[in-house]
Amino acid sequence: MVKKAGVLGATGSVGQRFILLLSNHPDFEIHALGASSRSAGKKYVDAANWKQTELLPESAKNIKVVECKPQGVFAECDIVFSGLDADYAGSIEKEFVEAGVPIISNAKNYRRELDVPLIVPIVNPEHLSIIEKKVTDAKAAGKSKIGYQICISNCSTAGLVAPLKPLVEAFGPIDALTVTTLQAISGAGFSPGVSSIDVLDNIIPYIGGEEDKLEWETKKILGNVNATKTEIVNIPEDDLKVSAQCNRVAVSDGHTECISLRFAKRPAPSVEQVKQVLHNYVCDAFKEGCHSAPKQTIHVLEEQDRPQPRLDRNRDNGYGVSVGRIRQDPVLDFKMVVLSHNTIIGAAGSGVLIGELLLARNLI
Amino acid sequence: MVKKAGVLGATGSVGQRFILLLSNHPDFEIHALGASSRSAGKKYVDAANWKQTELLPESAKNIKVVECKPQGVFAECDIVFSGLDADYAGSIEKEFVEAGVPIISNAKNYRRELDVPLIVPIVNPEHLSIIEKKVTDAKAAGKSKIGYQICISNCSTAGLVAPLKPLVEAFGPIDALTVTTLQAISGAGFSPGVSSIDVLDNIIPYIGGEEDKLEWETKKILGNVNATKTEIVNIPEDDLKVSAQCNRVAVSDGHTECISLRFAKRPAPSVEQVKQVLHNYVCDAFKEGCHSAPKQTIHVLEEQDRPQPRLDRNRDNGYGVSVGRIRQDPVLDFKMVVLSHNTIIGAAGSGVLIGELLLARNLI
Amino acid sequence: MVKKAGVLGATGSVGQRFILLLSNHPDFEIHALGASSRSAGKKYVDAANWKQTELLPESAKNIKVVECKPQGVFAECDIVFSGLDADYAGSIEKEFVEAGVPIISNAKNYRRELDVPLIVPIVNPEHLSIIEKKVTDAKAAGKSKIGYQICISNCSTAGLVAPLKPLVEAFGPIDALTVTTLQAISGAGFSPGVSSIDVLDNIIPYIGGEEDKLEWETKKILGNVNATKTEIVNIPEDDLKVSAQCNRVAVSDGHTECISLRFAKRPAPSVEQVKQVLHNYVCDAFKEGCHSAPKQTIHVLEEQDRPQPRLDRNRDNGYGVSVGRIRQDPVLDFKMVVLSHNTIIGAAGSGVLIGELLLARNLI
Amino acid sequence: MVKKAGVLGATGSVGQRFILLLSNHPDFEIHALGASSRSAGKKYVDAANWKQTELLPESAKNIKVVECKPQGVFAECDIVFSGLDADYAGSIEKEFVEAGVPIISNAKNYRRELDVPLIVPIVNPEHLSIIEKKVTDAKAAGKSKIGYQICISNCSTAGLVAPLKPLVEAFGPIDALTVTTLQAISGAGFSPGVSSIDVLDNIIPYIGGEEDKLEWETKKILGNVNATKTEIVNIPEDDLKVSAQCNRVAVSDGHTECISLRFAKRPAPSVEQVKQVLHNYVCDAFKEGCHSAPKQTIHVLEEQDRPQPRLDRNRDNGYGVSVGRIRQDPVLDFKMVVLSHNTIIGAAGSGVLIGELLLARNLI
Repeated sequence: MVKKAGVLGATGSVGQRFILLLSNHPDFEIHALGASSRSAGKKYVDAANWKQTELLPESAKNIKVVECKPQGVFAECDIVFSGLDADYAGSIEKEFVEAGVPIISNAKNYRRELDVPLIVPIVNPEHLSIIEKKVTDAKAAGKSKIGYQICISNCSTAGLVAPLKPLVEAFGPIDALTVTTLQAISGAGFSPGVSSIDVLDNIIPYIGGEEDKLEWETKKILGNVNATKTEIVNIPEDDLKVSAQCNRVAVSDGHTECISLRFAKRPAPSVEQVKQVLHNYVCDAFKEGCHSAPKQTIHVLEEQDRPQPRLDRNRDNGYGVSVGRIRQDPVLDFKMVVLSHNTIIGAAGSGVLIGELLLARNLI
Repeated sequence: MVKKAGVLGATGSVGQRFILLLSNHPDFEIHALGASSRSAGKKYVDAANWKQTELLPESAKNIKVVECKPQGVFAECDIVFSGLDADYAGSIEKEFVEAGVPIISNAKNYRRELDVPLIVPIVNPEHLSIIEKKVTDAKAAGKSKIGYQICISNCSTAGLVAPLKPLVEAFGPIDALTVTTLQAISGAGFSPGVSSIDVLDNIIPYIGGEEDKLEWETKKILGNVNATKTEIVNIPEDDLKVSAQCNRVAVSDGHTECISLRFAKRPAPSVEQVKQVLHNYVCDAFKEGCHSAPKQTIHVLEEQDRPQPRLDRNRDNGYGVSVGRIRQDPVLDFKMVVLSHNTIIGAAGSGVLIGELLLARNLI
Repeated sequence: MVKKAGVLGATGSVGQRFILLLSNHPDFEIHALGASSRSAGKKYVDAANWKQTELLPESAKNIKVVECKPQGVFAECDIVFSGLDADYAGSIEKEFVEAGVPIISNAKNYRRELDVPLIVPIVNPEHLSIIEKKVTDAKAAGKSKIGYQICISNCSTAGLVAPLKPLVEAFGPIDALTVTTLQAISGAGFSPGVSSIDVLDNIIPYIGGEEDKLEWETKKILGNVNATKTEIVNIPEDDLKVSAQCNRVAVSDGHTECISLRFAKRPAPSVEQVKQVLHNYVCDAFKEGCHSAPKQTIHVLEEQDRPQPRLDRNRDNGYGVSVGRIRQDPVLDFKMVVLSHNTIIGAAGSGVLIGELLLARNLI
Repeated sequence: MVKKAGVLGATGSVGQRFILLLSNHPDFEIHALGASSRSAGKKYVDAANWKQTELLPESAKNIKVVECKPQGVFAECDIVFSGLDADYAGSIEKEFVEAGVPIISNAKNYRRELDVPLIVPIVNPEHLSIIEKKVTDAKAAGKSKIGYQICISNCSTAGLVAPLKPLVEAFGPIDALTVTTLQAISGAGFSPGVSSIDVLDNIIPYIGGEEDKLEWETKKILGNVNATKTEIVNIPEDDLKVSAQCNRVAVSDGHTECISLRFAKRPAPSVEQVKQVLHNYVCDAFKEGCHSAPKQTIHVLEEQDRPQPRLDRNRDNGYGVSVGRIRQDPVLDFKMVVLSHNTIIGAAGSGVLIGELLLARNLI
């Protein structure tokens, strides 16, 4: 049965992406679009300054935008995707969860709460067992409606952890990791987003809060659920050193990340083994039949000048991650270039795929 | 006395830069411009497809281009700057040196010869002692004319080693170094140079041969002259691990390099000490009164989003290097962002400053 | 029945687009790929430097590239699409036509021959009556195989004439037309194509031969077939003055054209009438059921800042043309902004749609 | 004697340019910097988000920013340059003028007042006779201090009228003019200015109010002062038809304008005569010895692919205008490409040169 989906922050950059992905989706139908009081009451086509390269879907044009309140149409939703700015997400999402509405949020506000799963759906869907327990407990307690919070990871984190997960599974813990990112402008939204004077013939070697997110979120996403299925146990600080340097560049979509990593165990695997493991990795979302799950989770590219954002960002509709130039590293063990689509696997797309996982697991 | 200067490969990208820098130079006058037989015989203004943002100097317009032979006007030169492509530099430069003409070359051909100094003039001018010995020996032997070869480093190497040198002087050897570059298109020349389709809304995560140059040249430039002043002794492979990842981005001029480094000695210095040492560094070229030497060799920037190519590449006319975001690194000791002007300190500009050093030391 | 298609110049920019469009096409299958002797004998995946944002179709990867000769696999083709450079197209295409192979060419060589239709398929498919006559005559003469030449228009011409055609049909002749173009880099191919230094933070206010093509081809495309169906009668020079100014800009795909026009008849129509006529225009290719024909031939945009290349170039898969900012012009009658996808309706895409028209009319 | 200069809107984009141009200026010293109450009280270096490619001049760093009131330091100024946004310029500038402070403003608010000269200093300095009369009258009336308003033209208008003026002087009135612009992003400021998503791989075919400004201001600037020297008499609507189409493109500085024009008189001059007149034009500001006046007012370029923003925008420090591709036009008489530096001759630079003209004429 098609589930009713709501979108919070529907007029913003992430919200627009949610609408694109949910339109014509076999599992979801857009039931509620929420935005600020300035937009509330308008038809979506009039409220939004649509900036996507795909046209605004006809089915969404005439939906009436409402305020972001967990009543009315939003109360009828099976799942609500949030593209709210961090300034508003904190209180609004809390209100929704308390009202019994499940939230999948792109905002950073609750990512560090240990009882909130921080999910990259092609990487750590097993962390959803926390949600499974919540739902099971609620049902056992006779509750028909249960709210919960799930967070989508930061965009550059999603690309980074994609190859790490299968490598750790195959070769044991990684104890050191450096990453230098070249991040697309779409990650910064468009009201106003990145000023053109900042990226035309230029690089901005700084993105506020980004390095810290990369360094911290990695340890949570690669961590484990505790025995009681109530919290995530992060990888301890001392077991995994992560160092990030983040740059904004003149690319529309697609984050490029130059990474180096070292395994804790000796001897380290060979380049060929690393490639094989990445190539063979099949994410659970695909195994569970999720509609948007990539057929090939990680594309191992052999051409010496790939991956490139313009040529590779849309593999598997942006749900596949590309890894190229896998080679030995004189300082750590291996270096490689990772490319991921920041608005798909790095934001709204991950949100939708998390929704598909919940559905596949009967959690919505 | 003003010295006679020649330029090989005068119509190319590097050659054009040499001409800009040598025109109105107090120490040099352009005496010979060499190019392929296709251009020879023409006036420079007719032979060159001038692509610099500054206009072609009037004084250079009517110079007759000649072939790249160490006779005629080139035999009369005190110093010859070579912007030749590697395909031609090998044999032509050799011919010049054998004919007794000193060559300062931007080509890669002789960089790895241990008896050829590989010079970043704000970093290792002491390696010119090899040339000093050659000139002294030649004079002692009664020779009036002595040819020799000096190489300019690779563009991205120049920016990288600038902060390393004072750090090593102050805090002892660096034993591990990672660098991810975001390199400007001007480094690739313009016939045809980088295709626009490759950098518009794109990143090319590969530059042929560049990573190897960065990793190798660093060990030579930070090395020492041997006791007999005949060769450079590189830093041994095991004492300094260097790992480079190179990217081409849509920036006209200015290479950005995100670096991390570790000192061999414990405890490592503080961030404040690192900044102080970089800020206080004064290159020998400035002390020796060289015309183009930067007043401030290294600009330590405190703003969190600097250096930026568009805003900082022209500091000290492109001879100064900017270093920002100096901070501790969870994997190695420190990370920072280095910006250098690839066609000035990274190519032709270094060539001219090397010429000024030779002059200051009475070697031409 | 699926027709056998060949592609000449298959490794080049236009050839790659033909391959993308012909793969999975319901009417055509790729039967022959021709390139230079350097590529001949290789598998396509090894011969081509694939630079499209969509991946190379699996079905094309292993096709063996052959030389551009009208024998062997090419002799078996029902239709051959040519993406050859003008340097080679002249003699090769002639050889194919003489050997009885129909050619649809993107090259400029035969565009001005009056017995060769110059077709923008959404504009002047009636000019194909020349081909119809040739085929009918050949059949009458008992020939089983007949070669002929059809030319695709210049890329910027295609966008320009799209709105002109319905306007002329509705309101009579246009007697003056000015057009200033802002053209994408993909129109120049990629070996090497436009140098990045030429379009980064820059405009090139000149494209060799382009203004002349725009001014000339418009008069042919808007012209008529003569009574004997053997030649096109161009609009006389004095009846239609066209003035073009062409610029290359940093856009990957999509030509923007700012046009002004004047009708010969007084009074001129109203802005509203102009919009209505453009909106209501349905091209014959769509009426005839051609697979790639745009459902909406001309999209009339009402937003004041549209059309924009990034947002509008892909309407109707690049076969639809967008027209915006239709308003009165103080000098001529109307001004407006026209956007068309230069590699689809302006090049390979038009070629394929011409092929579909031939098929719909039983001419192949 | 060096005059005391003030800058209103000192922290904004235009204000920053004023500061760059006034620092180290032989005729002016910066005496007052005004900004919003948020900045007032801070040192300039702390108040401004400096975004120029040249470093903030040392001399300006420590100037204390004040509010935009015509008292205190601003009352002591001989001339005040305004870079205020139109939202604030109206009332603030009026207050200054009424307080007896001469204002040269970049804002659009008073441009259409017929008693306010709208000046492009290389084009119509004779319109300053209105100011001369005001000052003379004031002196005659025994007033020691007289406020007045002068407006700088819109950026794209400045480039357009530069070649028109000498042509009209030589060949009589122009009666029809079309112009399509490709405008740089710096014209839109940087807080936030143009969003990068709008110009990366894109064109915005619309700039709010710009076409109207181009069409209207041209008629005022090419108009005449009335007999009593109190007002400008614009060229009547019917005598000069102007049609503008404005586009925003990914260029940092430098507006490119493709223009076509027709002279009222027959026969029209030859291309050669047009070139000669443009080349020979010497602006009054240069004749009067103004410091910033271009030595060559109009650079007539003969290369077929010039002018280009990156290569030609800085001619005569941005005060010279480049005109290329002068050729006959099939619809009007001539077409050509005009390039001007939008922040120099199109904004702050013109303001400073107007100040120099006032000084040369003893009006301040």
